[in-house]
Amino acid sequence: MIIGILGGGQLARMMALEGYPLGLEFIVLEPGPEACAAPVAKQIRAAYDDEAALTELAHRADVITYEFENVPAASVKFLTEHSNEVAVYPPPQALAMAQDRLNEKTLFRELNIDTPAFAAVDSLAELALAMKTIGWPAVIKTRTQGYDGKGQAVLREEADLAPAWAQLKGVPAIVEAFVPFDREISVIAVRNREGQIVCYPITENSHKEGMLRLSIAQENDPAQPLAVKYATALLEKLDYVGVLALELFQVGDQLLANEFAPRVHNSGHWTQNGAKCSQFENHIRAVAGLPLGQTHAQGHAAMVNLIGGLPASEAVLNHTHAHLHLYGKSPRPGRKVGHINLQTQDQQAFDSELKSLISLAENC
Amino acid sequence: MIIGILGGGQLARMMALEGYPLGLEFIVLEPGPEACAAPVAKQIRAAYDDEAALTELAHRADVITYEFENVPAASVKFLTEHSNEVAVYPPPQALAMAQDRLNEKTLFRELNIDTPAFAAVDSLAELALAMKTIGWPAVIKTRTQGYDGKGQAVLREEADLAPAWAQLKGVPAIVEAFVPFDREISVIAVRNREGQIVCYPITENSHKEGMLRLSIAQENDPAQPLAVKYATALLEKLDYVGVLALELFQVGDQLLANEFAPRVHNSGHWTQNGAKCSQFENHIRAVAGLPLGQTHAQGHAAMVNLIGGLPASEAVLNHTHAHLHLYGKSPRPGRKVGHINLQTQDQQAFDSELKSLISLAENC
Repeated sequence: MIIGILGGGQLARMMALEGYPLGLEFIVLEPGPEACAAPVAKQIRAAYDDEAALTELAHRADVITYEFENVPAASVKFLTEHSNEVAVYPPPQALAMAQDRLNEKTLFRELNIDTPAFAAVDSLAELALAMKTIGWPAVIKTRTQGYDGKGQAVLREEADLAPAWAQLKGVPAIVEAFVPFDREISVIAVRNREGQIVCYPITENSHKEGMLRLSIAQENDPAQPLAVKYATALLEKLDYVGVLALELFQVGDQLLANEFAPRVHNSGHWTQNGAKCSQFENHIRAVAGLPLGQTHAQGHAAMVNLIGGLPASEAVLNHTHAHLHLYGKSPRPGRKVGHINLQTQDQQAFDSELKSLISLAENC
Repeated sequence: MIIGILGGGQLARMMALEGYPLGLEFIVLEPGPEACAAPVAKQIRAAYDDEAALTELAHRADVITYEFENVPAASVKFLTEHSNEVAVYPPPQALAMAQDRLNEKTLFRELNIDTPAFAAVDSLAELALAMKTIGWPAVIKTRTQGYDGKGQAVLREEADLAPAWAQLKGVPAIVEAFVPFDREISVIAVRNREGQIVCYPITENSHKEGMLRLSIAQENDPAQPLAVKYATALLEKLDYVGVLALELFQVGDQLLANEFAPRVHNSGHWTQNGAKCSQFENHIRAVAGLPLGQTHAQGHAAMVNLIGGLPASEAVLNHTHAHLHLYGKSPRPGRKVGHINLQTQDQQAFDSELKSLISLAENC
């Protein structure tokens, strides 16, 4: 079976690396000349909206998936309408929801998934009006195309409104209450074609400058059942196939849904070494119509992102319980170039190596 | 760093799959048109003794390794003599020893590693003479080129000598006492460029028709210390870099060395799911000059070979603790097309799933 992937970045690369042992092959549609996935997949080098390339992908692949949620909805629509014989997973309706923060939040509300207070705003006047019910501080975000903290602004007082609105350049937006969260968590959930659902232990996530830096797996966390309930509701409502990541703010006992990603997710990278079957293998199993693998955490597990620079591999691997995952990218500021997974049964070793690895990641 | 590999079969494929996360790239020299490693490595398609191709490989790679011990010694000699800038690991002297059963057994003897009684035989007359000291039954093997039970014959009585000698077509041979072993075991050992050595728990191996069918990891086995002592002596004597597999017969408390393979080995495939760092990753770490990873077994672990046929992937993955590893090969009789790893802490689940997986492998 040949898996087609829209996008040829590190997520596609890691899907392929974990999919070959299942006897599968991979082809990516990716415009970039130095795609991370290129050494481990065939590449159709074309724009995501190139209809001839999409037709070729549908012709050569047995099933199609994607590695990021900003793939043009029109491309997925074209694939589903013009290729009767190849399925696209996760389903287009999941992509459509994830691509528009207003639709996404509305879906959460419909499924009784708590969210921060929010309102759609299409003008500065609407923004000023919305702030009367949302309350200060708040965050304004573009409805579409934002990721890693881009396309967002914090609103702390009246005077912030006009500059923030100007910064967004008048595109449709959503304003959300700023949540004084106790912690940010996420749950990685998977559903296969048969409707089987499995969820990984939630992770506690730390961000800096809008980018994920650290995820620590929380086996048997009190928040797990509610996170799983929310993720399951989403998977079933969307008739979902593949991995879905749901990001949540925890405030006391309450979980407020921030957003979901219809794909494998950075906060699930720890599963490569911390779970029996990683999110990448389970995503591929799901879209290929295979039974799902085990998701529980094996001991203490965490993931440290490498952003903008690479430590010496020796320095990482001298940590007894560390595993290195590089993406084959040249470092540049703000670019995710790899991650380190840490996994051990030994709490003391975990704490001390984690501290050391975070420092290594911050100083390279 | 680019790793060059002589050979592009499943062992090269699995090395590459586990080497990409370390930020490495792979290029294989392999004459076959449908190489297992081709989807995950660049391929120079040429014969192993093609000097232009060897020169190209040395030019494009930063370090060279090999995936099988029947690579022409002349090719490795050519590489080491004509490319001053690229190292070849494991070292040529290890390959030379492993390629000739007489040299190999003589090396064992020199290192005080016990072996079955053996004698070199270059004629039918020498064979008849040798049998007076070796005793019946015995096994005659070609000194070079044998693998998976090929180039061997069992000698049970006087009358077997002439046909066996004829079958070997007069090539230099070695005759060895047939050992009434209690079990066949192997130890996978790794040494890196710095001289760091780690060993995996030994496995107990089952063969059928000369081919490995099943390996079960034996954590804390009483035979471990002696197996490690023998493997360590070999690694140090040969100034070895990479993975080495030593196959042993156990008779009572005695371990008799059968042979060693200067490469990753089928009896070490369980480490992909049963150890923190697999034999493939550790081989690549060793040749790339990186620190070695952890080798202890995580719970009960075993490997079942898939030879000549493929079960449905669903049937394998419906076993909760099974992991599938396919090589992208079309099945044909006697061909290794994949393996199944089993790993769990639960002894009862291990026993029952192992039985079921063996049956699945035998009936496909």
